[in-house]
Amino acid sequence: MNNIIKQQVIGIDVGVEKTSLALVDLRGTILAQDAMNTKDYPSVSSFVEALSERIIQLAEQNSGYESIRSIGVSSPSANYVTGCIENAANMPWKGVVPLAAMLRDSVGLAVALGNDAHVTALGEYVYGSAHGMENFIVISLGHGGIGSCFFSNGMPYLGSGGFAGEIGHTCVEENGRLCTCGRRGCLEEYASDRGILLTARQLMDASDSPSLMRDLPELTPLAIGHCADQGDALAKEVWHVTGEVLGRALANYASMVNPEAIILTGELTEVCQWLIPPLQESFDANVFHNLRNRMKLIVSTIPNRERDVLGASALAWTVKEYSLFL
Amino acid sequence: MNNIIKQQVIGIDVGVEKTSLALVDLRGTILAQDAMNTKDYPSVSSFVEALSERIIQLAEQNSGYESIRSIGVSSPSANYVTGCIENAANMPWKGVVPLAAMLRDSVGLAVALGNDAHVTALGEYVYGSAHGMENFIVISLGHGGIGSCFFSNGMPYLGSGGFAGEIGHTCVEENGRLCTCGRRGCLEEYASDRGILLTARQLMDASDSPSLMRDLPELTPLAIGHCADQGDALAKEVWHVTGEVLGRALANYASMVNPEAIILTGELTEVCQWLIPPLQESFDANVFHNLRNRMKLIVSTIPNRERDVLGASALAWTVKEYSLFL
Repeated sequence: MNNIIKQQVIGIDVGVEKTSLALVDLRGTILAQDAMNTKDYPSVSSFVEALSERIIQLAEQNSGYESIRSIGVSSPSANYVTGCIENAANMPWKGVVPLAAMLRDSVGLAVALGNDAHVTALGEYVYGSAHGMENFIVISLGHGGIGSCFFSNGMPYLGSGGFAGEIGHTCVEENGRLCTCGRRGCLEEYASDRGILLTARQLMDASDSPSLMRDLPELTPLAIGHCADQGDALAKEVWHVTGEVLGRALANYASMVNPEAIILTGELTEVCQWLIPPLQESFDANVFHNLRNRMKLIVSTIPNRERDVLGASALAWTVKEYSLFL
Repeated sequence: MNNIIKQQVIGIDVGVEKTSLALVDLRGTILAQDAMNTKDYPSVSSFVEALSERIIQLAEQNSGYESIRSIGVSSPSANYVTGCIENAANMPWKGVVPLAAMLRDSVGLAVALGNDAHVTALGEYVYGSAHGMENFIVISLGHGGIGSCFFSNGMPYLGSGGFAGEIGHTCVEENGRLCTCGRRGCLEEYASDRGILLTARQLMDASDSPSLMRDLPELTPLAIGHCADQGDALAKEVWHVTGEVLGRALANYASMVNPEAIILTGELTEVCQWLIPPLQESFDANVFHNLRNRMKLIVSTIPNRERDVLGASALAWTVKEYSLFL
């Protein structure tokens, strides 16, 4: 047994609705995957039991259980240090859930747990655009909001309480739009899905000019991108406003952290042909002059649909195999 | 020799005008000090020769040369990694100056070199308010501008190019005041000495109300503080504006870095009775809600006149004694 090189890991993304798992090799290739409904399991123990069965099945139907090195799990409100999901707002299980320890005891493999922003950055570090970098920022522009994580000397910087990288709730406009967090002018109110729709509605309300956006059955960032593709001036203006604000926020972030690169990931990068040009322009105009042209804005090459399980699997490589016996 | 516990270091602050040196013990007590004019030495070698004589004299007249463990040097444009002053704008010596190696060879002690923001933060870590903290920010509100350094897991975070912590040139006002760096809205144009005087002049120009500030022979932050002490409404407004902008910038910084504390140092802290209340109010209003009441704004207790040499001496404790033989 000790002579077998364990070259595969399992990445698990525990979402509010769906839990995805994937068997992943050293290069980040997904060899096989599976999924289950998180909400079907009102108790954590029934969830861990069902998940363990799927893990064993996934391994046995492919390279075999003995080739699995370890498991990485991504979930909202995950605490990497304790291995617990802590008071997650929308999950079926309340309070502090020691998911890493429960899963480890159930399947007999070392398990690490991390939150979404943390594992997304690890995914870029292990398999993606940040490979070989020591200091970099990963920004997730997703449906829910804007997350980020930065690496310091090859390690994720977590801060004193695990809250580092909260760029979504930095103030970008004094007395700006009211945020769900109760304050005004947060970046999320301008550059998240919700913020982009607010910008689009404001621009439509403030102008009489015709726009394809006015006829959309549902206003979404992707649909606004399609309108811009067709030459719609107001839709292009939405991206201009979004890119300007996001570029300014990222320039300030970079001035603090001096990264080698900022890597953009998440659903909004699907409209990157419209988002990136004004974003880059605003970034260059606002960044500290010593950093200008010395760092890159990169759009992640990891497909959004694979991002979460791949990130979770990247976390699995960071856990020591012998942590099983601690 | 090997049995002697070397309990003292020498801290040296190389300024454009003056070079100060101090003999410092483990607790940060300055046991003796000396100073010389930097500009008296047009060549680096003559400077190192004269400085070495002063170092030996300082040691011999006190606890003796053999009790000195190592030397820390602070200077503008210092590169900690190479031990060189690199293209300092206002120093008498041009180009790349290997000051650490020259001084080490001259006096036979290990020498470390750091820049102002870096050693100021180290001073707080070793002797000051950050003692025992692992993740914290130190902000220098000095005459020249606004510097900062943050510690990550007990180490100064330098970034990929040594430029981390450049809060002075983060944008706090879209299309705001024109900065010396060529961009608009930089924090330095609002919360440095220069920025505060600009605010005072703008407020005086925009109003007809009487103000003690109008009769000042020279407008300085300290003088504006004295006007506020006497109940001057316009002078108080200057501090309100300054604190609001600085509080917003520090809240954004804290949201990225999640520190245990932000420590304020530099000449502007001499007016902290006027600066801190509006700063704290703006910080609390703007900081990410998970950080509110979980971190402290602290005014440094290290006197400004001792800050630079004490910071340099703190750097001396970080250098390995055997680095002399490398």
